[in-house]
Amino acid sequence: MSDLLIEDVLSGNPLAVSRSLTEVENDTAHGRQLLDQLFPHTGKAHLIGITGAPGTGKSTLVNALVRHFRRPPEGSPGRRIGVIAVDPSSPFSGGAVLGDRIRMQDLAGDPDVFIRSTASRGALGGISSTTSGMVEVLDAAGYELVIVETVGAGQAEVEIARLAHTAVVIEAPGLGDDIQTIKAGILEIADLLVVNKADRPDAHRAVRTLQNMLELPGTSARDRLHHGPGAVLPEEEQQPQGQLPRWEIPVLTTVATTGEGVAELAARIDAHREHLQQTGGWKRKEQDRIKSELDALLQRRLVDRWKSSPQSENYQLVLDQLVNRQISPQRAVDWLVKGKES
Amino acid sequence: MSDLLIEDVLSGNPLAVSRSLTEVENDTAHGRQLLDQLFPHTGKAHLIGITGAPGTGKSTLVNALVRHFRRPPEGSPGRRIGVIAVDPSSPFSGGAVLGDRIRMQDLAGDPDVFIRSTASRGALGGISSTTSGMVEVLDAAGYELVIVETVGAGQAEVEIARLAHTAVVIEAPGLGDDIQTIKAGILEIADLLVVNKADRPDAHRAVRTLQNMLELPGTSARDRLHHGPGAVLPEEEQQPQGQLPRWEIPVLTTVATTGEGVAELAARIDAHREHLQQTGGWKRKEQDRIKSELDALLQRRLVDRWKSSPQSENYQLVLDQLVNRQISPQRAVDWLVKGKES
Repeated sequence: MSDLLIEDVLSGNPLAVSRSLTEVENDTAHGRQLLDQLFPHTGKAHLIGITGAPGTGKSTLVNALVRHFRRPPEGSPGRRIGVIAVDPSSPFSGGAVLGDRIRMQDLAGDPDVFIRSTASRGALGGISSTTSGMVEVLDAAGYELVIVETVGAGQAEVEIARLAHTAVVIEAPGLGDDIQTIKAGILEIADLLVVNKADRPDAHRAVRTLQNMLELPGTSARDRLHHGPGAVLPEEEQQPQGQLPRWEIPVLTTVATTGEGVAELAARIDAHREHLQQTGGWKRKEQDRIKSELDALLQRRLVDRWKSSPQSENYQLVLDQLVNRQISPQRAVDWLVKGKES
Repeated sequence: MSDLLIEDVLSGNPLAVSRSLTEVENDTAHGRQLLDQLFPHTGKAHLIGITGAPGTGKSTLVNALVRHFRRPPEGSPGRRIGVIAVDPSSPFSGGAVLGDRIRMQDLAGDPDVFIRSTASRGALGGISSTTSGMVEVLDAAGYELVIVETVGAGQAEVEIARLAHTAVVIEAPGLGDDIQTIKAGILEIADLLVVNKADRPDAHRAVRTLQNMLELPGTSARDRLHHGPGAVLPEEEQQPQGQLPRWEIPVLTTVATTGEGVAELAARIDAHREHLQQTGGWKRKEQDRIKSELDALLQRRLVDRWKSSPQSENYQLVLDQLVNRQISPQRAVDWLVKGKES
């Protein structure tokens, strides 16, 4: 049964992919076994992280992008695309995905498109453990593009930057031009910037603001880190030919509802992949991502191991003393890890 | 020196508070020692989490709220207020807080207001470990209200909900009325909803949309969990008198730039504190928050302990094999935790 399923996943059988994603999302023993077997078949997909605040029209843009990649203009074959839409944590209900059915309607029935929503459960290490696994399932199943879509600004974006080869940050007019944008630090993780809803009158202002920010020193740190003049890379990472082509972060405009600008966005996403492959950035991002996944898994395993240790039996007692402020959190942890010493 | 500093922190000396916050933020040995000593003096402050997407005017509203609490209308004494503004992760530079100096200008010089920005570094467990500690410093230093402000939607909000007694979610017209809002799941963590920029023409629509959502089944899960008819609480938590007063989540309107609606928002924040104190919710939130902090500290300690174990010496070797797909992440972790068994 398990071997059969693996073969089915590798051949891209939608039902097998769907079942595997569920096992991985729920972190079952079977899911971990699947990932163990699928992992050697991963590493081929182009991972694209797409993130933006609520109200930027991000989901609509992702749908338009999927449609474009499925039906390229010049008669070339469409690529197989998987989408993992990470919904913000919903700690109590496990995530409301009311929008999910709505957005899938016009892509339903295409066997080469797979869209799955997942709740990032607010667990520590949330996005990087189960989402990484879900991406690996789609990668092994032969989806050539895997889009990971997140809402908001904050930790999720950083995780996306680690996870994806290409990080796309979506803005919209009226959001992109105030002080908050600077605070959000989004420019540091973006490989491509997109102003969606570009038919709104203040769109050009949002574009100009983003362009100005890109020219500020210190804002495009990621780019400098990877290719810029001040980059400090380990010797072995430096290419012998000296001057690497530098990736200029473009500020693109789209109107997701009409499809305007979507072809250009798709072309730039492809161009970024080629850039990464030519400069060694692909391999470097691969390493960063896998290291991040290893760290998250390791952390979880260490906690699980502790939970089955004798010290864990003191947990409730320690917590009660903590709530009553009889001990401090620092001493509570000492006690839980080493046993009581006082 | 250390004892002196503790006394200075407890008496609210701004320089001592500032230095303590820096030690705690940087997670130094001294910082951990300080927290250990300050912890018995915590538990008095009303913790208020305020969150909203970029562009909602959240920082301006927090400033207006601080001014209001400092200068209450009826001649009663102003309360001492601390603000921790959590900036989204900036993985490369450690967090750009360009807006910080701008926002502090009109409150500078008031010794009973303390505003500090901190970058949530994208570390696993980020917000809950250092931010909890920083809140404890302000609590111990006698700040009666401690506001924790976060940008975005996602994990940060969930952490805020755990951390705060009162969770305030800010919306703005044009953001609050699309499908993204439902996806963001913010209604599940809010004790108060605020539509800021309420002088915009479409403000009433945002208010109505939020009100409608509050009436949808399944959206105000937090409220139901705590007080509603479908609540399933442990026996011991159930109040003997049977019918607890239910907290109706209000949808308020403000114009932060003019101060309109700020007094009402402040009054509702106070009303929520009274509600919590009357219903036992205060203690329950306290327990949840402390448990969350303990879990984050424990996790970090377990990782630190592993790092000083002999198994950790295999880390680079295991990572290399993983990147080359010679082993799977699951086997890599097995090896790192238990030693190689194959």
